[in-house]
Amino acid sequence: MRYEQHTIEGRNAVLEAFRSGKTIDKLFVLDGCQDGPVRTILREAKKHDTMIQFVKKERLDQMSETGHHQGVIAQAAAYEYATVEDMLERAREKGEAPFLLFLDNIEDPHNLGAIIRTANLAGAHGVVIPKRRAVGLTATVARVSAGALNYTPVAKVTNLGNTIEELKKEGMWFVCADMGGETMYNLDLKGPIGLVIGNEGEGVSRLVKEKCDFVASIPMKGDIDSLNASVAAGVLAFEIVRQRMQG
Amino acid sequence: MRYEQHTIEGRNAVLEAFRSGKTIDKLFVLDGCQDGPVRTILREAKKHDTMIQFVKKERLDQMSETGHHQGVIAQAAAYEYATVEDMLERAREKGEAPFLLFLDNIEDPHNLGAIIRTANLAGAHGVVIPKRRAVGLTATVARVSAGALNYTPVAKVTNLGNTIEELKKEGMWFVCADMGGETMYNLDLKGPIGLVIGNEGEGVSRLVKEKCDFVASIPMKGDIDSLNASVAAGVLAFEIVRQRMQG
Repeated sequence: MRYEQHTIEGRNAVLEAFRSGKTIDKLFVLDGCQDGPVRTILREAKKHDTMIQFVKKERLDQMSETGHHQGVIAQAAAYEYATVEDMLERAREKGEAPFLLFLDNIEDPHNLGAIIRTANLAGAHGVVIPKRRAVGLTATVARVSAGALNYTPVAKVTNLGNTIEELKKEGMWFVCADMGGETMYNLDLKGPIGLVIGNEGEGVSRLVKEKCDFVASIPMKGDIDSLNASVAAGVLAFEIVRQRMQG
Repeated sequence: MRYEQHTIEGRNAVLEAFRSGKTIDKLFVLDGCQDGPVRTILREAKKHDTMIQFVKKERLDQMSETGHHQGVIAQAAAYEYATVEDMLERAREKGEAPFLLFLDNIEDPHNLGAIIRTANLAGAHGVVIPKRRAVGLTATVARVSAGALNYTPVAKVTNLGNTIEELKKEGMWFVCADMGGETMYNLDLKGPIGLVIGNEGEGVSRLVKEKCDFVASIPMKGDIDSLNASVAAGVLAFEIVRQRMQG
């Protein structure tokens, strides 16, 4: 299950790729190049938190497949984002109640990769992430997912809260993982469900938490505050699996 | 909860630290230094997979606290290893059935750190790791454990299988996480228990698996093979928590 990358070359193509929301893992720019179009591309790259590397012309020439890089080459992820509708369709096809994971600003690519891996093995129909302030489908995420990214769709949405609102209208329930909620064993997690996992440091944001129907807590017996985000996602996802197996 | 390091300086002190099994996170050696004692130290460092950095004399002088580094300075972890007996004592003091995690050659410091964090929050009395072929208590492990390393003891043993044998004589049960076993919900995990988690790539080694009383499997519904090791440890550890809460 190899992670494929492809390069996008030339100023217009690279700028268009950024603006269309394509996942750019890395941007290579000719060292010392400072004209208007390049500055616009750099601004887009910063806006998307893309890694930027300034390199010499020889390096760009060597990387270029077309021979017309005009001083900019972007490495784009080959993984395409899915839509939430695709995921619901997937659940319908399987005759299963929808089970989606919503990640409220996971920043660490190791956590995102591990959560996609967990989603696959827990039988979730997809993973939903926000467009901004969160890590996207980088090469590290693909590697850590151990191939799961080839099977489990990932959707990027503008506003997690709005998407949750819309799905609630379609009959889905939302449970947010946080401290101070009901112990997860006491909640009914069998129906069509969205499990919301928060950011590594800050947890689930207030606006997203307010949209959720329940707060589910993992019983904590120790001295420190919280589990690693991908471990918490795993423990909660498999509590859903356990309850669903009981029918 | 800061991670403390201390430096060990001078050839005998550094060599002694390696031979006594102390955790050396990093070794600094005078660039170009090739004499016998230094070669012996480098051999020990390689045997323990210690990170080695060759530096100039000015750097060593600057790092040195004693002024007598003789061309070698080691950075040692301040965390001390506990013994399995300490952990059993801890369980007795709390009036709880012992609950230990045995890690069969976890290699990734992120996984070890996340598992120590999980062990703390699941109320386990300690984590047991083997002396060889596994990552030890490095600065990365301490950081990823999010402070748990200050509370949850870690023991290093020569042979996991032998330790398991001894603890079985004292009434502990051992359950090994692997595919093809009994679904974890169908096993009784309430008694004095050792949960054995395998290596990231190879799982639990045959010799260790043979010593275990049960093989517990997480129900897998997906397309890929296995969960991330720290997620699997979390899911199984909290199944033990769930069963114990039911009394």
